[in-house]
Amino acid sequence: MGRDTKHSEELIENAAITRLEERGVTTKDIAELVYFLQKDFYPELNETYCEEQVKHILKKREVQNAILTGIELDCLVEAGKAREPLQDLVKVDDSLYGIDEVLALSILNIYGSIGFTNYGYIDRLKPGILKGLNAKSNGKVHTFLDDIVGALAAAAASRFAHSQKRKSES
Amino acid sequence: MGRDTKHSEELIENAAITRLEERGVTTKDIAELVYFLQKDFYPELNETYCEEQVKHILKKREVQNAILTGIELDCLVEAGKAREPLQDLVKVDDSLYGIDEVLALSILNIYGSIGFTNYGYIDRLKPGILKGLNAKSNGKVHTFLDDIVGALAAAAASRFAHSQKRKSES
Amino acid sequence: MGRDTKHSEELIENAAITRLEERGVTTKDIAELVYFLQKDFYPELNETYCEEQVKHILKKREVQNAILTGIELDCLVEAGKAREPLQDLVKVDDSLYGIDEVLALSILNIYGSIGFTNYGYIDRLKPGILKGLNAKSNGKVHTFLDDIVGALAAAAASRFAHSQKRKSES
Amino acid sequence: MGRDTKHSEELIENAAITRLEERGVTTKDIAELVYFLQKDFYPELNETYCEEQVKHILKKREVQNAILTGIELDCLVEAGKAREPLQDLVKVDDSLYGIDEVLALSILNIYGSIGFTNYGYIDRLKPGILKGLNAKSNGKVHTFLDDIVGALAAAAASRFAHSQKRKSES
Repeated sequence: MGRDTKHSEELIENAAITRLEERGVTTKDIAELVYFLQKDFYPELNETYCEEQVKHILKKREVQNAILTGIELDCLVEAGKAREPLQDLVKVDDSLYGIDEVLALSILNIYGSIGFTNYGYIDRLKPGILKGLNAKSNGKVHTFLDDIVGALAAAAASRFAHSQKRKSES
Repeated sequence: MGRDTKHSEELIENAAITRLEERGVTTKDIAELVYFLQKDFYPELNETYCEEQVKHILKKREVQNAILTGIELDCLVEAGKAREPLQDLVKVDDSLYGIDEVLALSILNIYGSIGFTNYGYIDRLKPGILKGLNAKSNGKVHTFLDDIVGALAAAAASRFAHSQKRKSES
Repeated sequence: MGRDTKHSEELIENAAITRLEERGVTTKDIAELVYFLQKDFYPELNETYCEEQVKHILKKREVQNAILTGIELDCLVEAGKAREPLQDLVKVDDSLYGIDEVLALSILNIYGSIGFTNYGYIDRLKPGILKGLNAKSNGKVHTFLDDIVGALAAAAASRFAHSQKRKSES
Repeated sequence: MGRDTKHSEELIENAAITRLEERGVTTKDIAELVYFLQKDFYPELNETYCEEQVKHILKKREVQNAILTGIELDCLVEAGKAREPLQDLVKVDDSLYGIDEVLALSILNIYGSIGFTNYGYIDRLKPGILKGLNAKSNGKVHTFLDDIVGALAAAAASRFAHSQKRKSES
């Protein structure tokens, strides 16, 4: 732990959202994944409400840290500038390279363990935006981003589950 | 940290396996889940080899600890002897109760983060033995056990992935 | 995931606090640990403010789940009613039994990874209430409780660090 | 998960050890930390045996992944080439930036939760090589490296504790 950054909380939050958008991911894309995860359990759910949950998730510093770090690594490797063997491990998303999941888990943990299942489920099915991110075509590297996006959606679904419980009591 | 237990490593391992069997889960059941997870990626795979992986997983103390603790809690609640509100939280597997996933994660972590996806996937699809464990019929409580079994299978699948890499090099 | 519990959020929170008190731990005891952790960095800090942070931590469901589960296991073993070898592993706080740390970590994770250091530090130094909990005298079992109390203090210290950052900007 | 890297397991292990050495950390330095952590509990312990434990830890792929990734980020920031605000967050080791601890935890988890305490303890006391790494002098950035080195030492201490138990039974 050192001194604190000169950047304001607001600047850091905006930077995280901007990085996601530069890499082709909007809060609406993530909201669609939340909807996919929860629609069977809550028929009255709509994507606007899902997007609100996503925006709340993005206000957390740990979440912003994971986004900024993961995308930086994706871009570094996409530019061919990481040293070997890391360059190749990340580029091919090697089956024994798990730091992308480690970062994703740091997002999930903030909303407790109930998000693990949803994360694993969409990570394997690759619905919506995840399909494109995973395509590994045209030189793009999204090794970290696809796990981060899945974790954001799963965390938002967890937050939604918590909010439903409170609502049912008020 | 206190003094060490009087029980030998072998006794603890056998106790964990016996507890699983008493609750209706064999190493063969878990091996079937490993096969389900990996058969599409390794067509030459067979269940005997999967069962070997499961047996290796069960030799780890952290894994044995999670099994012994989780099943004890399931049995305590099944007997109606935990205090409220824990009794009801575990009995109904409340959607905001996540200690079962926390214990499952302690199993997964030992083989690294690459197992998270497989864990989430089978936890949601409930193939094989997981379907019965999740049925919540006839008074049985398997809130911890179903997550533990899913984690054992996912961890064994991770171990298998590591072993394939080594094999391809030798 | 099953149906939800019949218990209200408020009842669950109160139950967690009551369990802590029954085992001899008050929010004031935990606040003293927070003060111990942070006093060198923030000379103007006082224990009243630390106690406020602790009370916020105790409002989180994952935290309540860990408290209710860990203390139930301590009491079960104290009454001699867990089956062997778990009974002895928990009673002696065996050096290879780590489920108490696993539960503690589920508390820490909610406030991000910055709390790990503080947790490890007080867990080893055992200041304040932790010393008594760790004494293992007169038949009491606090294997889970001492790690949970340390994690509550470390999580509160993390929450405090987050709040200071926001305050310095407003 | 994509295709696997072209690099052999041996090459990846050697690369991780080389990166540590380039940044001024030898297996002997880490062994000294292990000795510091365990000498009070095992008076007959020596640093040669501690170094053997460290070398075993460095054979694990998850450990190698964390080392390669963390040091790459340290070097990127040291060269001033990460984008803001990440550049400044890592450079000053911001008190709310916790991805360095997240990577450290991925090392610790492999040997179970019993290593958390040791990790937090040395991370706060900064004995041996950790003191120099944390100095933040002469333009060097070791935000990730100091947490990784602490985690390697704590993991090696955990491995040692497991091996002692087995030895006492044979």
